[in-house]
Amino acid sequence: MSLTEHVVSYITDTPAESIPPEAITAAKRALLDTTGVALAGVPEDGPTIVRDMVSRHGPGPVAIIGSAQRAQLLDAALATGTAAHALDYDDTTLPLHGHPTAPLLPAVFALAEERGRSGAALLDAFVIGFEVEARLGHAVDPSHYGLGWHATATAGTLGAAAAGARLIGLDAERTRHALGIALSLAGGSRANFGSMTKPLHVGNAARGGLQAVLLAERGFTATEESIGGPMGFLKLFAAEGEDAPERLEALGESWGIVDPGINVKRYPCCYGTARAADCLFALIEQHDLRAEQIERIDVRVEPGGLAALIHPRPKDGLQGKFSMEYVLTAILLDGEVRLATFEDEAVLRPEAQRFLDRIHTSEGATPPEFAGAPKFAHVEVTLAGGGSLVHAVDEAAGSADHPLSWDELADKYRDTAGRVLDMEAIERGIEHFATLETARSLDGLIADLCPAGD
Amino acid sequence: MSLTEHVVSYITDTPAESIPPEAITAAKRALLDTTGVALAGVPEDGPTIVRDMVSRHGPGPVAIIGSAQRAQLLDAALATGTAAHALDYDDTTLPLHGHPTAPLLPAVFALAEERGRSGAALLDAFVIGFEVEARLGHAVDPSHYGLGWHATATAGTLGAAAAGARLIGLDAERTRHALGIALSLAGGSRANFGSMTKPLHVGNAARGGLQAVLLAERGFTATEESIGGPMGFLKLFAAEGEDAPERLEALGESWGIVDPGINVKRYPCCYGTARAADCLFALIEQHDLRAEQIERIDVRVEPGGLAALIHPRPKDGLQGKFSMEYVLTAILLDGEVRLATFEDEAVLRPEAQRFLDRIHTSEGATPPEFAGAPKFAHVEVTLAGGGSLVHAVDEAAGSADHPLSWDELADKYRDTAGRVLDMEAIERGIEHFATLETARSLDGLIADLCPAGD
Repeated sequence: MSLTEHVVSYITDTPAESIPPEAITAAKRALLDTTGVALAGVPEDGPTIVRDMVSRHGPGPVAIIGSAQRAQLLDAALATGTAAHALDYDDTTLPLHGHPTAPLLPAVFALAEERGRSGAALLDAFVIGFEVEARLGHAVDPSHYGLGWHATATAGTLGAAAAGARLIGLDAERTRHALGIALSLAGGSRANFGSMTKPLHVGNAARGGLQAVLLAERGFTATEESIGGPMGFLKLFAAEGEDAPERLEALGESWGIVDPGINVKRYPCCYGTARAADCLFALIEQHDLRAEQIERIDVRVEPGGLAALIHPRPKDGLQGKFSMEYVLTAILLDGEVRLATFEDEAVLRPEAQRFLDRIHTSEGATPPEFAGAPKFAHVEVTLAGGGSLVHAVDEAAGSADHPLSWDELADKYRDTAGRVLDMEAIERGIEHFATLETARSLDGLIADLCPAGD
Repeated sequence: MSLTEHVVSYITDTPAESIPPEAITAAKRALLDTTGVALAGVPEDGPTIVRDMVSRHGPGPVAIIGSAQRAQLLDAALATGTAAHALDYDDTTLPLHGHPTAPLLPAVFALAEERGRSGAALLDAFVIGFEVEARLGHAVDPSHYGLGWHATATAGTLGAAAAGARLIGLDAERTRHALGIALSLAGGSRANFGSMTKPLHVGNAARGGLQAVLLAERGFTATEESIGGPMGFLKLFAAEGEDAPERLEALGESWGIVDPGINVKRYPCCYGTARAADCLFALIEQHDLRAEQIERIDVRVEPGGLAALIHPRPKDGLQGKFSMEYVLTAILLDGEVRLATFEDEAVLRPEAQRFLDRIHTSEGATPPEFAGAPKFAHVEVTLAGGGSLVHAVDEAAGSADHPLSWDELADKYRDTAGRVLDMEAIERGIEHFATLETARSLDGLIADLCPAGD
């Protein structure tokens, strides 16, 4: 059996009942989290421009999540996908070396809504698409990234096609054609990191995957060797000799969505602050610590761990996201790190700017209890009244090994969704996700993800 | 100045009046030819499926050439582009290692129609887009092809973006963003050669280039290094050390559309038959040769020149396209090689099947007069009444060095356009192209490229 046939048969032949409950639970958690992140991305400039562009096409039958605007299927996937990655606040998974949920979610939401599919069918398609996407990304890692490609975009396109094919039940031949079409729609250079085009990669992946499915459904043909073969995904997108077909052959042997699982980003700022933030939250909880008790804070992280944190004295919200000093300050002043933490006024308030001086950062030796861990944070708080408090972590909260609870995920959703939805819709949305496998259609959920029009 | 800045300033700063008349003439010839090829492609299965898919989106303001269907701008470019390459009968240019006109034509036609631009503006944008596209393809040739990429698709996407940016007069900053967006929309694996997805590459290139322009026009941002830089076009799409920035620096020093120019495909069949067909037409014209005079024909071509001609006894139209024996037979029986030559019934008619046996092919030594030429055909006709006639060529008619006359191009257009248009519309269309630089808008031309609806 060729590699392509292996992937195709995985998509078409995996029995729905063989998907374990843990995988369905992981899918529900991922959809809740990334839907919230997409909602928070809706007001950003990039997604707003994309919605404006597709508004030329007139209203269509499919929701753009977080917007009153309705669009054609492919346009809706493009717009929702761009929003899902606009804040870079969506989940990651290690094998993909990228963001797995953002390209899949807009594809399965849009297609399930248009075709009137159930919540269970959506979850099933999401899990299958996730496994294909993550394994494809893993098979070309790390040379794919090194060559300049963005796996979220490339593997995301084929993952979205896999999910779409599964969702509408394409047969093996049409699924094969869908993957072949998707191969030629896959792209996305890391040169565009730091611009609006990075989130556009996600919208394009969702859109391209669905375009491949719509064409294949109608009998459009493509290569038989979209995955293996001399010009299939593995060879085209990896350096010579570095593609790893055996990693893809393992598709179906385990559930990557469960293990190694999904990393959720807990704080809407540079990931380099996450472990130190966790330490400070732990000290606050254990010792009822307050800002006025503190003389200084010393933060130590692994060598290189401060490289991205280039703004010790941030002057606006964006700089605040790359400031260890500000993130810890905000935790002490506000007791939380949320989207509003990074509004310009929050960063510029005098009490925050004054407190920044008390925080001192360094890179240094790993604490003995975490010997061998690639990353850590060690936070020592010196109290004004004498004495000090210490906490250290190696894995950030929200990582696959330290997952957030459902309530913690829901709390993140309240923050993210709150940028565009009212409180009642937010609470109903959380409940929809909690019971998604029982929903006969997505209509109720979608209605609660879209604010009413003007 | 960076490579990207060089390309951007070429697009935005080249004075329209600096484009020589020869380049405008070449553009008109290319547009006439590829429009005809696109019209002939309209009834094919792949383009028909694409039109069906975009018909879901309801009617729009832009023509799909050769169809009564009107569509949104991006959908129209997708559909017309797919038709333009469906028969692989569209032009080529050496530096691109691909098909230059097919990705550009749908983009400039759709955008010029929607924005009410003139024929002169369209020709100007086409020439600028052509130069960018061909130079980009040249800069990554040959490793681009060797890695599995299809330059028509990849360079075509950036070429279409360049043409679109020029057509609507984007400023330098927005043009730069358009190229950056287009970089991440570029893709297309040669694994899909031989399937409907190969022509889809062209539709996607035209569509992606225009999407980049529409987004950039609205302020969407992208990388500053879409061409050079560590993850720009040259590095991303060429093997290590094989990208050739100096080939791109030559942009603006000469007009590639004039020299080396465009190769037009004269016959709608495998290019490996073209030189031998030219020889036989020459003998017919010189000697008033008729089939019944002929005892046998011996065709000799360069070593490897028969590799693709795998059907000495074709049983249907598609096989006939890859049959030296049938192409020469049809020339003798019909006096022409046209689209109708490759209908199944034409191939299967008894007088054709009988004549195939008289034709003998071989690969062998280059005739002395063409010493050093990479390809040739040598045709010797043995007459039933005794004696023989010989003709040999190295360059096929229609190649850049042996261009077809305008009347010969128009004759090809009559054949290709005849698949979907009536004779009056065809003749008016030829006249529109002949005077395109004087057209205030495309409305008259477009009307004559679209049959009335049912």
